[in-house]
Amino acid sequence: MIKKMVLALGLLCVLFPAMAFAEDPSGATLNMGLNSLWIMVAFVLVLLMQGGFILLETGSTRMKNAGHVAGKTIFTAGLGALVYWAIGYGISFGGGNAFIGWGDFFYSPPFAAGEGDNYPSAVYWLFQLAFAIVSLSIAWGGFAERAKLSSYLIFTIFFVGLIYPIVAHWIWGGGWLFNDGAQDFAGSTVVHLSGAIAAFAATVLLKPRIGKFNKDGSANEIQGHNQVFTALSVLLLWVGWFGFNAGSTVAIGDGFFAYVGFTTMLGAGAGAVASLLTSWAILGKADITATLNGTLAGLVAITASCAFVEPWAAVVIGLVAGILVVFSAKFFEKIKVDDPIYALSVHGIAGIWGTLANGIFATTELAEKVGIGQGGLIDTGSFKQLWVQLESVVVCGAFVMAASFLVLGVMKMFIGFRVTEEQEIVGLDISEHGAYGYPEQMKKGQGIQG
Amino acid sequence: MIKKMVLALGLLCVLFPAMAFAEDPSGATLNMGLNSLWIMVAFVLVLLMQGGFILLETGSTRMKNAGHVAGKTIFTAGLGALVYWAIGYGISFGGGNAFIGWGDFFYSPPFAAGEGDNYPSAVYWLFQLAFAIVSLSIAWGGFAERAKLSSYLIFTIFFVGLIYPIVAHWIWGGGWLFNDGAQDFAGSTVVHLSGAIAAFAATVLLKPRIGKFNKDGSANEIQGHNQVFTALSVLLLWVGWFGFNAGSTVAIGDGFFAYVGFTTMLGAGAGAVASLLTSWAILGKADITATLNGTLAGLVAITASCAFVEPWAAVVIGLVAGILVVFSAKFFEKIKVDDPIYALSVHGIAGIWGTLANGIFATTELAEKVGIGQGGLIDTGSFKQLWVQLESVVVCGAFVMAASFLVLGVMKMFIGFRVTEEQEIVGLDISEHGAYGYPEQMKKGQGIQG
Amino acid sequence: MIKKMVLALGLLCVLFPAMAFAEDPSGATLNMGLNSLWIMVAFVLVLLMQGGFILLETGSTRMKNAGHVAGKTIFTAGLGALVYWAIGYGISFGGGNAFIGWGDFFYSPPFAAGEGDNYPSAVYWLFQLAFAIVSLSIAWGGFAERAKLSSYLIFTIFFVGLIYPIVAHWIWGGGWLFNDGAQDFAGSTVVHLSGAIAAFAATVLLKPRIGKFNKDGSANEIQGHNQVFTALSVLLLWVGWFGFNAGSTVAIGDGFFAYVGFTTMLGAGAGAVASLLTSWAILGKADITATLNGTLAGLVAITASCAFVEPWAAVVIGLVAGILVVFSAKFFEKIKVDDPIYALSVHGIAGIWGTLANGIFATTELAEKVGIGQGGLIDTGSFKQLWVQLESVVVCGAFVMAASFLVLGVMKMFIGFRVTEEQEIVGLDISEHGAYGYPEQMKKGQGIQG
Repeated sequence: MIKKMVLALGLLCVLFPAMAFAEDPSGATLNMGLNSLWIMVAFVLVLLMQGGFILLETGSTRMKNAGHVAGKTIFTAGLGALVYWAIGYGISFGGGNAFIGWGDFFYSPPFAAGEGDNYPSAVYWLFQLAFAIVSLSIAWGGFAERAKLSSYLIFTIFFVGLIYPIVAHWIWGGGWLFNDGAQDFAGSTVVHLSGAIAAFAATVLLKPRIGKFNKDGSANEIQGHNQVFTALSVLLLWVGWFGFNAGSTVAIGDGFFAYVGFTTMLGAGAGAVASLLTSWAILGKADITATLNGTLAGLVAITASCAFVEPWAAVVIGLVAGILVVFSAKFFEKIKVDDPIYALSVHGIAGIWGTLANGIFATTELAEKVGIGQGGLIDTGSFKQLWVQLESVVVCGAFVMAASFLVLGVMKMFIGFRVTEEQEIVGLDISEHGAYGYPEQMKKGQGIQG
Repeated sequence: MIKKMVLALGLLCVLFPAMAFAEDPSGATLNMGLNSLWIMVAFVLVLLMQGGFILLETGSTRMKNAGHVAGKTIFTAGLGALVYWAIGYGISFGGGNAFIGWGDFFYSPPFAAGEGDNYPSAVYWLFQLAFAIVSLSIAWGGFAERAKLSSYLIFTIFFVGLIYPIVAHWIWGGGWLFNDGAQDFAGSTVVHLSGAIAAFAATVLLKPRIGKFNKDGSANEIQGHNQVFTALSVLLLWVGWFGFNAGSTVAIGDGFFAYVGFTTMLGAGAGAVASLLTSWAILGKADITATLNGTLAGLVAITASCAFVEPWAAVVIGLVAGILVVFSAKFFEKIKVDDPIYALSVHGIAGIWGTLANGIFATTELAEKVGIGQGGLIDTGSFKQLWVQLESVVVCGAFVMAASFLVLGVMKMFIGFRVTEEQEIVGLDISEHGAYGYPEQMKKGQGIQG
Repeated sequence: MIKKMVLALGLLCVLFPAMAFAEDPSGATLNMGLNSLWIMVAFVLVLLMQGGFILLETGSTRMKNAGHVAGKTIFTAGLGALVYWAIGYGISFGGGNAFIGWGDFFYSPPFAAGEGDNYPSAVYWLFQLAFAIVSLSIAWGGFAERAKLSSYLIFTIFFVGLIYPIVAHWIWGGGWLFNDGAQDFAGSTVVHLSGAIAAFAATVLLKPRIGKFNKDGSANEIQGHNQVFTALSVLLLWVGWFGFNAGSTVAIGDGFFAYVGFTTMLGAGAGAVASLLTSWAILGKADITATLNGTLAGLVAITASCAFVEPWAAVVIGLVAGILVVFSAKFFEKIKVDDPIYALSVHGIAGIWGTLANGIFATTELAEKVGIGQGGLIDTGSFKQLWVQLESVVVCGAFVMAASFLVLGVMKMFIGFRVTEEQEIVGLDISEHGAYGYPEQMKKGQGIQG
């Protein structure tokens, strides 16, 4: 617009020769720059969440697998970047139809933002890639401590190349759930539920870890080896979540992104407090793992709703998530599903709750502001949005479940999925990589390996 | 302003029909957006400092307490967020009178910045909350390795809800010390001294840890278990401090925020070098802990002055802080105050020095630029500003001391503050949470627990 | 420019009295603010890379040296900041001639950006300092586990004060290689090769660690103690690299910085995948260390070229780097150079490859966009740019080699460089600092020190 002003004022320059505007950026260019910078910052924050996952997964598992668990995050993220470049981004955002995107494969973005763009597409690619590999890292929760290394590589290709992008296309890429008005601001369903369902498929196909369940059906706790890592992981994820949620505005505009950050903080805080008190009341001890999971569950749940609800509702959503996660973890143990990183509870159950909560708590004013769907049950008295939300959960969940079972099932059949019993006992650091992640500590101890 | 230009030029559009400005953001909106983005980035950096505290506190304490120490940072931060939302923010910034703010309880910010706002208030809330929980985490230094879990929850409510907000109101919220011209740019007093004084109250009421002092009055060193954690913590805090200090401009404006970052870096560097050389000279060894503390002390000290002093003065402030912290740690040990995380030296003594240093080194030019107080002793030859600085230290210190003793003393009387001797020996991971933070390492060792 | 518009429209105000523009920031000011904020964010990300180095170096070395290795990063960074302030920045960017800069010693930047500045110089100083200390931390790779503490302090002064700044002046500070059109966008040569060559000088002068090579010339693997640390370090470095590379645009402009980030991600991903597959094929196991090194090598290699190449070329550059690094590590071991942190392979060989790759893959379009040098062999069919790139590698490498050998050789002669055999065996935590970094673990184990 200022460019046009410059044109207009150029005429005035005939009268006022001192004026020379040409080198100055226009308001539209500055606005594009401001949005771009915000998306870049948000991307960096979401990428930092991989550091959270390294710590969360290693801290929640045993020392003999630590190098494997940590290292695989790096190379699956690297492979994920290539796959998303080659295929995934095009499936999500490459045009196409309501069911699948098609185009922009081996993506080659323009060097700069085009006329009228709100940001250059390169930064959007980075941001979306970071989301894809967060979902992937959630899925690894179901693989932990017993999957073969090759399964990580194969699943990365299918999940980042196809499964996740299809769900993202449906809800965020202009697909059919988007057209139905599904509200999932930053991915309670797209990112968290997808990852959790993939984790579920993996853990069911892999079966529980040796020693997790006794013959009489009772469960043993296989404690993670480092709660400093898990606590720090939650902090890193929490920090990254402000890129995740507030960054999903992909614009600075009138400052609404700050409000999204505000509700995000309330959801997290409520999740932490609710899970602490719930675990204290139920288990008799203020369980650290439960509290950490509750904080994450609060964050997962508010992810769908952060742009759609009032502060009080953000608190309620977080509180419910924090309570749910404690019972959910008990439930999965009871039905003998071994979920070492609590992916099913933290990302699955809280992801479902968060998506549905939108249909309850979204206000009409905010739904209109965001421009997706409509107000929820409380504000409108109508079940319509809740129904749309339920639809996304069921459809996306079913699709990811079917696709993951297919990929992992075929893989299991032809090349195997689980390491041998001997390898699992000795640990994946030795079996898959030939060296301990903690060589001095493993040798110094009670001679586990000598 | 550009809006008005648009109006004006709209008239010109009658003559030049190609012009259409309506959709383009105005300069004021872009400026608001730029400030908002900077405050959001700064908030994220200050929140990241909680990761620094997790590592600082666990690294400085023993393995048997590691899960407890790390985990409590997450749930006190979460609880702190709710309390600050419900009460604390309103006490600090909710209008009121010169002594206490009143309003904005259960804060519900507007969704966007208003006309003429420099940023949306939601992002200011996030930034201020992050400061409040930094102060809280400093206070935990005095609780370490012997306080009951419940005391963390109770103190969080009072400290984040009342004590810290009152001090913040006095200096930053338009209260009486602000009116007196107290200079505390980013919180040497508000954040660091308040936290340290609360830590002091706690450590005095709790008494020293078992084994810290011998019957003859001599002290034993209870070494922290992980210097990689403490070194990494200092790095994370250092990184976060650029949000803390430079972010406290809450504006991009003419680029002054960069100068604030510049002096911050010099203060940190000087603190590191001074403490290294001091410890080498005094203790005969280049003590790692002393150097880490010196770096933090340099940062704490420059926090008040970062916007008020010349580069050479920033170096001097950091050097003095780095020297002071080594002697201060010895002093507190001598008077039998057990300060496991060095909160009293790093945040207390350096916080006092930093606040007073403003009264010495502040230049008139910068005091005018910031718009608070006046130049210090060297520039003006007047003790006036130094006196105001001393006043803030004394008054805020005394208030936090009294309030903390009251809260913690009453708590101690009615529900107890310290765990039992048996619990302390077994460690808080087991006593407060029922599981070790490092289960494998605790079992593999010389059988401390088993 | 808008200021001038205001002047012009001021005249119109006589006609339209409602207009009052004076308080609104101009487009030029907003543009300066936007660039400043991006450089500040990028600086913070590059500073965060020191956290990566703390974890990379400690994770790659043994427990008995962990406190020393971690702690020295903090105090050398602090000392580096003071030295860069006093001398280094002036040598790099203080005017001068084509061979050395001269001016701006004890740098005192203006408080704000000047009229027409793209950013305030204070933020540029911060950004450049962060680069200097990254290069320094790379050099420490050659010192690891056997250098005396004093050598770290002395080398910091010479490297950050003189050696690094001279190279930076030549290529980035308007020096003679800049005039020759050397393309090194974010420092494959300036930062990475310089650091690696200094590490090479150190490791040659220090000789290999005790136990690294047998009398028959064969090598033993001295495993690092913590792969969670090394994996997390790679993630932190990866995150920081977006400040490093994309930040080197030092402007938001048309959004080109996002494209730079895009190629950076592809280089990293390709490095990770290539090294994983190479190590799997060559060593028979998917070596974690090799994969981590490959990811970093991809990042180092793309650093020179990130603004000059097409996406496919970024992938090729990363793939080659990932393959090279595996063979390079074997090669250095074969010629009995002990390189504990793999600095020579990751930063040296990949740094050389990355710099040369520019001469092969740079496109004319991008070289013109950046405004340095010209297109490479493939696009132009000319060896000219490749030759210039080779020149920078050879000249900068030779200079840093000579200067480092001189400084370290003289130091070795007069005050010694390596700790005694006894000190090395007991570990530098005890010998240089008087306490273990992991006191509980060192005592609990098989009694290494008791």
